[in-house]
Amino acid sequence: MNPGDRVRVDRADRTYEGVLLPSSTDEQLVVKLEGGYNVGVDRDEADVAVLAEDVYEIDGTDATGDDAGSEIEFDDDLPTISLISTGGTIASTVDYRTGAVTAQFDAEDVLRAVPDLAGRANYRGRVVANILSENMEPPIWQDLARAVREEIEAGADGVVVMHGTDTMQYSASALSFMLETPVPIVFTGSQRSADRPSSDNVMNAVSAVEAAKSDCAEVVVCMHATESDDRCALHRGTRVRKNHTSRRDAFETVGAAPLGEVDYETETVEFRREYRERGETDLEIAPDLEGDVELLKFTPGMDPAFLDVVEGSDGLILEGTGLGHVHTDLIPRLEELIADGTTVVMTSQCLEGRVCDRVYDTGRDLLEAGVVEAGDTLPGTAKVKLMWALENSDDVEEAMGTSLAGEIQERSVPWA
Amino acid sequence: MNPGDRVRVDRADRTYEGVLLPSSTDEQLVVKLEGGYNVGVDRDEADVAVLAEDVYEIDGTDATGDDAGSEIEFDDDLPTISLISTGGTIASTVDYRTGAVTAQFDAEDVLRAVPDLAGRANYRGRVVANILSENMEPPIWQDLARAVREEIEAGADGVVVMHGTDTMQYSASALSFMLETPVPIVFTGSQRSADRPSSDNVMNAVSAVEAAKSDCAEVVVCMHATESDDRCALHRGTRVRKNHTSRRDAFETVGAAPLGEVDYETETVEFRREYRERGETDLEIAPDLEGDVELLKFTPGMDPAFLDVVEGSDGLILEGTGLGHVHTDLIPRLEELIADGTTVVMTSQCLEGRVCDRVYDTGRDLLEAGVVEAGDTLPGTAKVKLMWALENSDDVEEAMGTSLAGEIQERSVPWA
Repeated sequence: MNPGDRVRVDRADRTYEGVLLPSSTDEQLVVKLEGGYNVGVDRDEADVAVLAEDVYEIDGTDATGDDAGSEIEFDDDLPTISLISTGGTIASTVDYRTGAVTAQFDAEDVLRAVPDLAGRANYRGRVVANILSENMEPPIWQDLARAVREEIEAGADGVVVMHGTDTMQYSASALSFMLETPVPIVFTGSQRSADRPSSDNVMNAVSAVEAAKSDCAEVVVCMHATESDDRCALHRGTRVRKNHTSRRDAFETVGAAPLGEVDYETETVEFRREYRERGETDLEIAPDLEGDVELLKFTPGMDPAFLDVVEGSDGLILEGTGLGHVHTDLIPRLEELIADGTTVVMTSQCLEGRVCDRVYDTGRDLLEAGVVEAGDTLPGTAKVKLMWALENSDDVEEAMGTSLAGEIQERSVPWA
Repeated sequence: MNPGDRVRVDRADRTYEGVLLPSSTDEQLVVKLEGGYNVGVDRDEADVAVLAEDVYEIDGTDATGDDAGSEIEFDDDLPTISLISTGGTIASTVDYRTGAVTAQFDAEDVLRAVPDLAGRANYRGRVVANILSENMEPPIWQDLARAVREEIEAGADGVVVMHGTDTMQYSASALSFMLETPVPIVFTGSQRSADRPSSDNVMNAVSAVEAAKSDCAEVVVCMHATESDDRCALHRGTRVRKNHTSRRDAFETVGAAPLGEVDYETETVEFRREYRERGETDLEIAPDLEGDVELLKFTPGMDPAFLDVVEGSDGLILEGTGLGHVHTDLIPRLEELIADGTTVVMTSQCLEGRVCDRVYDTGRDLLEAGVVEAGDTLPGTAKVKLMWALENSDDVEEAMGTSLAGEIQERSVPWA
């Protein structure tokens, strides 16, 4: 059997049918399923039958960025958009039809996968990872930031990052802190895979490309604004949250209206709030992260032993109740952690509104213990930010209380 | 110095001024501050000065429920509403003006504190706890359930529970599972204390009493529906969430319209959805809880050592990503925990929408490992429910996938 063959793989009591892909290890078979997802199977435990040979042409590992050989001609009048794939439902549309999982896909692959993208831009394609986004890890955020920098340095007028929806908000936050960008960096994904009639992948991909051509040089998330196929919302990367498990309009800006919208019919991009304009800043990258930062959500009856796990860590984000509280019995332990060098930051599980520990006694005790407030920073964003600030800020406490990438809002902006 | 004296207490670099209250221990002084909150101070470390003697009359510990001595006459034409205090901003209005913290307050105390309550009901008063709600613990939920039962048995036509807002949703969930009730049980609280001009305590208290007189025999939360003083929303106890740190309309029903509303001007209570009617069920109580249940929110880069803390626990609620996922590397460890007897239940940090682990490989692997799905149960509610189900259900797995008290919705009901 060879990559490109259609195979059936039996392992334990499960059967997979799909296209065999190149694998980076000898121990694993990687099979691209009908739905577009890849599954890894232990080679030793699997029975494999080849159903048909050479069903798909598998791209090589050439990562020069050169799209020589493509039949698509470069159009001088169009901007160049770089599409970076990390995996997930939307990327699988491209990956599945092209088989490109190892390094590179080109303009032709993109247009074969989503024909509606034709005529909008010259495309560059690049694969940073091919994972389900629940498996995303901080080192891949760093790879992604470096890949985005390289694409911009190579002339991309905008970057679209195809990402699984589960942890898109964390990755968008990471890039928001790591990169100062002169061009748009637009995350998009899909809540329904391409093989389902209700798939949102085409409209999201098209809208993301339009947003990447726009004037807004920020890290944003572009996903369905409503349950209809009428428009996508553009959310600031540090304020966005997946607020529904399955709806196509699951992504929302917390505590404010979205930054802007892409009208799918008129293909216009409009912004309702201030943003950083294209070219306003030079390209800068600061990808270092301190990995040893944890997040703990406090609930009544929580075992204080969770705090022991954090002992020796560099940072802890608490997701407290209300204005930023935990059971007062935990405060002496937090004080010890802080004395040992852990930066402890308070956020609220309310999600909307800012923490304020000056109002009640519990809060004042937390502040006295050295707990740092993160304003209205979302808990997940605060974790990413603290990882970043510990490596990149002279004054981490001050950084956590200051908006570096739109993560703290001056005041809550009402919903539109 | 004696309870009832106005005192100044110096401890370390902080000074408290207020009324000295009876304390249950010799080690602590309890001082009721101007804002209405109580503070506990180590007696050994404190310097105390008596500013004025016998400023407040402190009620005794008589808990007979007899309001003999009250000047308020019992009105046969009015229903009897029991007000139960657990502490928090709204209770402090009553507590502060009456000094009643040990056992009992009567109709007169209630009307002195909130004169607008006059003429609406005959009142019984009772104190179960006097804590900030971030310090709420499962054993107090049990005390509260027993107190509610006793009040209903003693003839209350409805019960109002005054509770701090930080963890009100957890307590409301607990009582939803513990009690089958023939009368309304209405939680209310206050986001702004009585000494602030924008306080919501009067409207919330009045609306809660009106809701407690209504036909809806469920555990509900009654809080401001909007930022105006126009109406309160009635939220089912298992579906409500404090979604803002400070707004008066912070409480929302997740994924659905609220159950009903109390119009403050017309004093009418209206319901938009089906509910259990007054008298439909007999009074039943099942207050047992398994305390050894934890909740863990998964975020990218999470230290797997958090799962070690759960080893030997009876239950674990995971707050996963998207449809209910965690990093696949955690699955073998979860499988071990489950094999050791821990019930592991999946919920989603999206908060809206149900988990579904049949869609993607990670989810299928989680199901194969024995993880149980909780539908669209909110993560905090799922924790309370699992504590309850482990003691009260023959089949915990089935219970977690079945709606016992409205915590799982047949399908998401659109926002009003």
